[in-house]
Amino acid sequence: MQYTSQTLERIISELSKLPGIGRKTAQRLAFHVLKQPRNEVAILAQSLLDLKEKIIRCSLCFNITETDPCSICMNTKRDRRTICVVEEANDVLAIERTDQYRGLYHVLGGLLNPLDGIGPGDIRIKELLERVDSMQEVILAINPNVSGDATIMYIAEKLSGLPVKISRIARGIPIGSDLEFADMTTLTRAMEGRVTVR
Amino acid sequence: MQYTSQTLERIISELSKLPGIGRKTAQRLAFHVLKQPRNEVAILAQSLLDLKEKIIRCSLCFNITETDPCSICMNTKRDRRTICVVEEANDVLAIERTDQYRGLYHVLGGLLNPLDGIGPGDIRIKELLERVDSMQEVILAINPNVSGDATIMYIAEKLSGLPVKISRIARGIPIGSDLEFADMTTLTRAMEGRVTVR
Repeated sequence: MQYTSQTLERIISELSKLPGIGRKTAQRLAFHVLKQPRNEVAILAQSLLDLKEKIIRCSLCFNITETDPCSICMNTKRDRRTICVVEEANDVLAIERTDQYRGLYHVLGGLLNPLDGIGPGDIRIKELLERVDSMQEVILAINPNVSGDATIMYIAEKLSGLPVKISRIARGIPIGSDLEFADMTTLTRAMEGRVTVR
Repeated sequence: MQYTSQTLERIISELSKLPGIGRKTAQRLAFHVLKQPRNEVAILAQSLLDLKEKIIRCSLCFNITETDPCSICMNTKRDRRTICVVEEANDVLAIERTDQYRGLYHVLGGLLNPLDGIGPGDIRIKELLERVDSMQEVILAINPNVSGDATIMYIAEKLSGLPVKISRIARGIPIGSDLEFADMTTLTRAMEGRVTVR
């Protein structure tokens, strides 16, 4: 097949790289963009660039933020004795969406996965341990799968002996699913139903 | 819900405007982009801008192109006595993909739709009529729906009296589909459009 435009071919190829976007969807998106006013497209393009330019990691909790420390870490109304450990920044968003949790967060940036060669040094466990001293409870809000369980066990082991309660959110989240896609009620119940690991 | 980042909120809102992309998909895309290297994101953003900057309409067939006239109109190997009339530029791509058609194109830029106030002056019918003089056949490759049928009837009417063959592409059962699942209208058209096997 011969496209009449290199530019079109390039945007279709670029859009196809996005997750869940195949060639046909990419083509449909490209033709949609082509019909949009120039300033609308400029806003979209600039938003993409801003994402990389303006968003940084909070040096305390490693959540994504535009200010360091992030607004959650800076919020004096939040419970500074409770920390919720998650895999990625989108998990913070999912939990914030329930509007139930009032403590702080810690974003690991991954889960232990020996098969993929991801060990404790590759995710932010050391940084977590440094923060735990001042905490009353560590809530492990980590996806219930093999890597998640391994990570929970590892963290629980590392924290054993410290005077801190460790809990994991209830496995109300369907096994094999992703925390990010849980509905608010399920996620709220899972938070409430957290069980003590030790 | 309070997002921790205005920038993230903005890109999610921008991506949600795209067809077939809801809020959750937009969020997933945004987090994907966030993980990409900066230069990859810059390429994507630039490709979007290029789409509006570099792509123009061919002044002959109104297909999208980067050069005017477009590569199809300029191609001396193509049959200049046959013209295929389509609704939008993506229909040209679909037909080119079959690698069977060797004539020229004419992109209407829409279909007649009195209910939406789209009349003959709003689509490129006048421009088509100006091109028909030198043609042997006009193939109407227009979607078989109410607007499509109205457009086909209107063009056929306008061309009546001219020494040019007018055809429309066959309506029938899609290849690989099942007759059992075809709607009544499609099946009726397929029966009407039956072709002699031997």
